[in-house]
Amino acid sequence: MSSPTAAVLLIGNELLSGRTADANLNYIARRMTDIGIKLAECRVIRDDVDTIADNVNDLRAKHTYVFTTGGIGPTHDDITMESIAKAFGVRVERYDEVAEAFTKHYAALNKPTTAATFKMADFPAGAELIHNSATHAPGAKMENVYIFAGIPNIMQAMLEAVIPTLTQGDTIYTHSIDAFISESQAAEALENVQNDFSSLDIGSYPFKEGERFGTSLVTRGTNQKDVDKSFSAIKTFLEGLGAEVRG
Amino acid sequence: MSSPTAAVLLIGNELLSGRTADANLNYIARRMTDIGIKLAECRVIRDDVDTIADNVNDLRAKHTYVFTTGGIGPTHDDITMESIAKAFGVRVERYDEVAEAFTKHYAALNKPTTAATFKMADFPAGAELIHNSATHAPGAKMENVYIFAGIPNIMQAMLEAVIPTLTQGDTIYTHSIDAFISESQAAEALENVQNDFSSLDIGSYPFKEGERFGTSLVTRGTNQKDVDKSFSAIKTFLEGLGAEVRG
Repeated sequence: MSSPTAAVLLIGNELLSGRTADANLNYIARRMTDIGIKLAECRVIRDDVDTIADNVNDLRAKHTYVFTTGGIGPTHDDITMESIAKAFGVRVERYDEVAEAFTKHYAALNKPTTAATFKMADFPAGAELIHNSATHAPGAKMENVYIFAGIPNIMQAMLEAVIPTLTQGDTIYTHSIDAFISESQAAEALENVQNDFSSLDIGSYPFKEGERFGTSLVTRGTNQKDVDKSFSAIKTFLEGLGAEVRG
Repeated sequence: MSSPTAAVLLIGNELLSGRTADANLNYIARRMTDIGIKLAECRVIRDDVDTIADNVNDLRAKHTYVFTTGGIGPTHDDITMESIAKAFGVRVERYDEVAEAFTKHYAALNKPTTAATFKMADFPAGAELIHNSATHAPGAKMENVYIFAGIPNIMQAMLEAVIPTLTQGDTIYTHSIDAFISESQAAEALENVQNDFSSLDIGSYPFKEGERFGTSLVTRGTNQKDVDKSFSAIKTFLEGLGAEVRG
């Protein structure tokens, strides 16, 4: 049994000013669950070199994998690469093969390059590049830290490019059922199920559908038999309560 | 000039398993910007007493305000109140006036209460209640820590209930313009503007609209004159580049 953990570091003033609503955490979270990696925490921080470096160093010591998003473009506020170089105590250096690819790409499009374009060819010394299907500007990997773009489709392409290289954990099994009862009505029976299956992650989430209130009951864990048994126990007590259910 | 800061702590395994996409950070971020409070960081953590308590203690020492969301319902996985009590070194205690309100409310609806219902009448000893327009189950305030529900409409009602009591910062002014040029083309001129107005937060954000790519250029700060001047400088260099703009 392996139990890799991961952390996500979302970088960008725009996420904390409210200008931009993050769409990356949920995607990464779902993909980690798919491959049995426990996402332990996420932090959202501002574009500040020391803040980024300190958080990267803290998280990379605690977790198997760290995924950062944002701040890898061509403008002055894109400081993730230099910040992560600082975290590792290395310099940023120009990767000539990336710079040459930019030159060819822009020439083919008959578009001008600028000094700023080539900032996206600078990486922490020693970084491996993350080539991806969405863009010719790569991400980068420094040890267990994966440096992704902030734009969702590019972030997703970079994550998908590295997923086959990650150490996957045990498969996480999950069952969910929606019942038209309140959380309070389900609470005692649900707690009993949790006590009977202490290794599982059993949760309840209220929902509203039109004027009707209900509760989603979810069981999740790596022991498939226990997940199945706990789900049977949940369905049994819902029957006992006479609850209308679906799913 | 006052410069209050805030941190957000999103609590819930469901946010890290990917079951649920958070909708609260962006709302809180926008409202903080509205009232001149700088949102400095956000963390997303699991339902674990020590993890919650440690993060609350870390953040409340660093920031003027801490806002938590999630984990205040009636079920076994709702452990925010006990965790924050632990952070403050106090017990959880039953608030009789809240319990009585539940009893009356359920009686009026002709619905049963359970032991779990009254868990939502338990708060860290000494907490002030946050009554709100969305639910009869209050949030709570312990010193500078505000404990909100995770369900967005309830969270929003609780935040709106406390906003008039917060120390507001200087008004944050912002201007934004969309230009149909690449970030690379704008980078050098934008960096010059940032250097001329170092107290402002000047950013660029690429966007795609159909098949067209563009860049949003944003200036933000508390000095209205400088925000206006920097925006004029941005518009001037966009004209110089012959960029098609809007907004």
